[in-house]
Amino acid sequence: MTQTVQRVKPHRGASAARPVGLGIIGVGTVGTGTIKVLQEHGLEIERRLGCRLQLKMICSRNIHNKDLSWIKSKVALTSDWKEVIRNPEVDIVVELVGKLPTARAIAFATVNAGKHLVTANKQLVAEHGLELVGRSLEKGVKLGIEACVAGGTPILHAIRSGLAGESFAAVYGILNGTTNYILTEMEHRGVSFAEALAGAQQLGYAEPDPTFDVEGFDARYKIAILTMVCFGQAVPVEEIPVEGITRIEQVDFAYAHRLNRTIRLIAAARKQRGNNLDIQVRPMIIPQSSQLASVRGSTNGILLVGNKGGTTTLTGRGAGGEPTGVAVLSDVVEIARMITAGGTGSTPLGYSEWHKKKIGQPSVELVSYYLRLVVRDRPGILARVCATLGRHRINIDSVLQEPGMPREHLPFVMTLEPTGDARMKRAFREIARFPFLVQPPLLLPSVDLP
Amino acid sequence: MTQTVQRVKPHRGASAARPVGLGIIGVGTVGTGTIKVLQEHGLEIERRLGCRLQLKMICSRNIHNKDLSWIKSKVALTSDWKEVIRNPEVDIVVELVGKLPTARAIAFATVNAGKHLVTANKQLVAEHGLELVGRSLEKGVKLGIEACVAGGTPILHAIRSGLAGESFAAVYGILNGTTNYILTEMEHRGVSFAEALAGAQQLGYAEPDPTFDVEGFDARYKIAILTMVCFGQAVPVEEIPVEGITRIEQVDFAYAHRLNRTIRLIAAARKQRGNNLDIQVRPMIIPQSSQLASVRGSTNGILLVGNKGGTTTLTGRGAGGEPTGVAVLSDVVEIARMITAGGTGSTPLGYSEWHKKKIGQPSVELVSYYLRLVVRDRPGILARVCATLGRHRINIDSVLQEPGMPREHLPFVMTLEPTGDARMKRAFREIARFPFLVQPPLLLPSVDLP
Repeated sequence: MTQTVQRVKPHRGASAARPVGLGIIGVGTVGTGTIKVLQEHGLEIERRLGCRLQLKMICSRNIHNKDLSWIKSKVALTSDWKEVIRNPEVDIVVELVGKLPTARAIAFATVNAGKHLVTANKQLVAEHGLELVGRSLEKGVKLGIEACVAGGTPILHAIRSGLAGESFAAVYGILNGTTNYILTEMEHRGVSFAEALAGAQQLGYAEPDPTFDVEGFDARYKIAILTMVCFGQAVPVEEIPVEGITRIEQVDFAYAHRLNRTIRLIAAARKQRGNNLDIQVRPMIIPQSSQLASVRGSTNGILLVGNKGGTTTLTGRGAGGEPTGVAVLSDVVEIARMITAGGTGSTPLGYSEWHKKKIGQPSVELVSYYLRLVVRDRPGILARVCATLGRHRINIDSVLQEPGMPREHLPFVMTLEPTGDARMKRAFREIARFPFLVQPPLLLPSVDLP
Repeated sequence: MTQTVQRVKPHRGASAARPVGLGIIGVGTVGTGTIKVLQEHGLEIERRLGCRLQLKMICSRNIHNKDLSWIKSKVALTSDWKEVIRNPEVDIVVELVGKLPTARAIAFATVNAGKHLVTANKQLVAEHGLELVGRSLEKGVKLGIEACVAGGTPILHAIRSGLAGESFAAVYGILNGTTNYILTEMEHRGVSFAEALAGAQQLGYAEPDPTFDVEGFDARYKIAILTMVCFGQAVPVEEIPVEGITRIEQVDFAYAHRLNRTIRLIAAARKQRGNNLDIQVRPMIIPQSSQLASVRGSTNGILLVGNKGGTTTLTGRGAGGEPTGVAVLSDVVEIARMITAGGTGSTPLGYSEWHKKKIGQPSVELVSYYLRLVVRDRPGILARVCATLGRHRINIDSVLQEPGMPREHLPFVMTLEPTGDARMKRAFREIARFPFLVQPPLLLPSVDLP
């Protein structure tokens, strides 16, 4: 095989030979992954960049107790993050500390010092993203946030750059690997939520306290960021309705399969009439044939519905040190490219202005629902539920009951024709008070994803 | 719903208020789609940009015979593309003429005139991409090529920016909507190749002369571009082995399904030992469970195998005026952002240096094969084929024969254990000479895509 190399000449005014210096604060899973990827892909990255990229300083609170002997390059160590920002050889500060107060302090100190910032902190970006972008533009520095959503999947770049000419009708995401692992284990291996969770904890996919993941809070930060990037709308994270997966049972998969559907924890932001956004994180009943139904295990997947370009999906690794490290370094490469090319400014959130919205108005779209009731079997129950739904003018599409269920704990499911959110809530409150229920009813939206 | 708007202040040194002027050359399907998307998404795009984007001039050879009354903005018309480049109000030239000699002339004239260029011409970029990038860097202008591969799917941005920190082991793509439509029609509706092709032609998915699509040439240009962006290696397009789908029959889907597999036209570039690349376009037998198997109809899909971030897939619209228009405008937005932010240079192919390689060395990897023979049924045929394979030390994994086939035209299939490319070719040449064959044998690689 013959081979020649063509080097592109540095263009006018650029200082292509200047090495770009990197400082990393935080050496946990993602920090370690980032350093490892940089170590192994360094040459490839430099071929992309046309300049050298050098890791200059690493900071960790307990840096001197860490075994960093696997790091091959000569790099300064510190336990004081301010030293990283002060280091004149550091052009880009990579913030990977995890905890919000410290992350926020590092982020603003970095930007205020006129240095470029890459962060993997979703909470920081979801809650302080606009302020951070504003400050970075004032200071003429760049921000990288790709690692905040769906780790190794380049979703934010894809939306912000590759689909910058699109306007979106909706975005649907499987944004939390832990819950998707649990749900797909329940689905394909027939285990209970508790068993699947225990398995996820053994594999390191779930924390000892899994609340942040299984109750949907992690996905909520991510959909808040996707909403900013897709729609240019900033919403207060805590106002986004969220519901976790702890109430999903085997029987729900059995019923969903009878409907040619399955269950996934979906983070969704949909444009409605009047440019209102309907944003929520909750388990949804989706078609087996939809692209997101085939996203299994700890994989993440995002489905973008464009007004002109049709439907685009991305799937990939959502977490893990090295996949997230790839995302961090991709931002570093982007910023290093801009450093060598000159120029200022950055719109990592995709827009130059945002509408700050409060959520609160109920959705005006009609939605189909899946209602699961667990009752003590006695005559007349179905009639009473039907009467209540009828009084709220909600039509029943089908009633499903698996054979051979115990009479004292009898789960059955009703699928309901499309109805308004407010009306459904009123009917649901009434039904939830019925004395014959063995446990609170479960209501899931049934959504026709492509 | 309360709403406030936060505008990000223009940063130091940027001229955020300056409108960016656009000229479009070529008003066919993609040109029309681009203008329509711009017309409808203009406000959204300007919110992203923070500056105005104005269509200043449109060029078409027969501009004065075209009905352009649907264009709402005031725009100059010309039938001479040189006028677009000369127009001082045009900052970005969008080249959408299709034919190579003209496209090439426009592209180089644009760059030489110091103007930014966006093109959807895959042949131009596959054959002259390096030269064009080199010239654009000399001239300090940007290039946009997103529309060249998989229309509305932001694959090039995703690789170049969002996965810039990755190094890839392989890329597999369904890059031609026409052939994927034909194959999935054959698979799901049981029609013949000819019937599926006729249907595709009726729907406008296939040209009256479908050679360029069905023989794989279109996909070959696209995999050449993906190879540049993924691996930084430029290869002569005509050296990439290509095989079309015209020989695929219903019976092949029947056999593939028995193996829990299906058939897709896959454009693949894989890194092998010694950094050699194995690049090819051909129908492959892939697992039903793989992500690309679920890419149906005229949709495109790309599967990226990273060394650190795992597997990432993108699916979306591959062609069509408006999806491709979205890709064109996404490049326009990127370039307009850089214009307003200052700075020079551009690496649309993802690298600052490329290895120019000649292909020619046979693949050293072992590959499993699917071998379909159509014979006149007579005793001893299987023994002779087995003996030939055995002499070349190729092991047989299974022999499949559907019941009820006609004896005069009996198709049967052998699946072969992994074997080297050169050895397989030698055995295949011998088998192809057997007199009892009713038609030439069909050999497809069977690839275990994730």
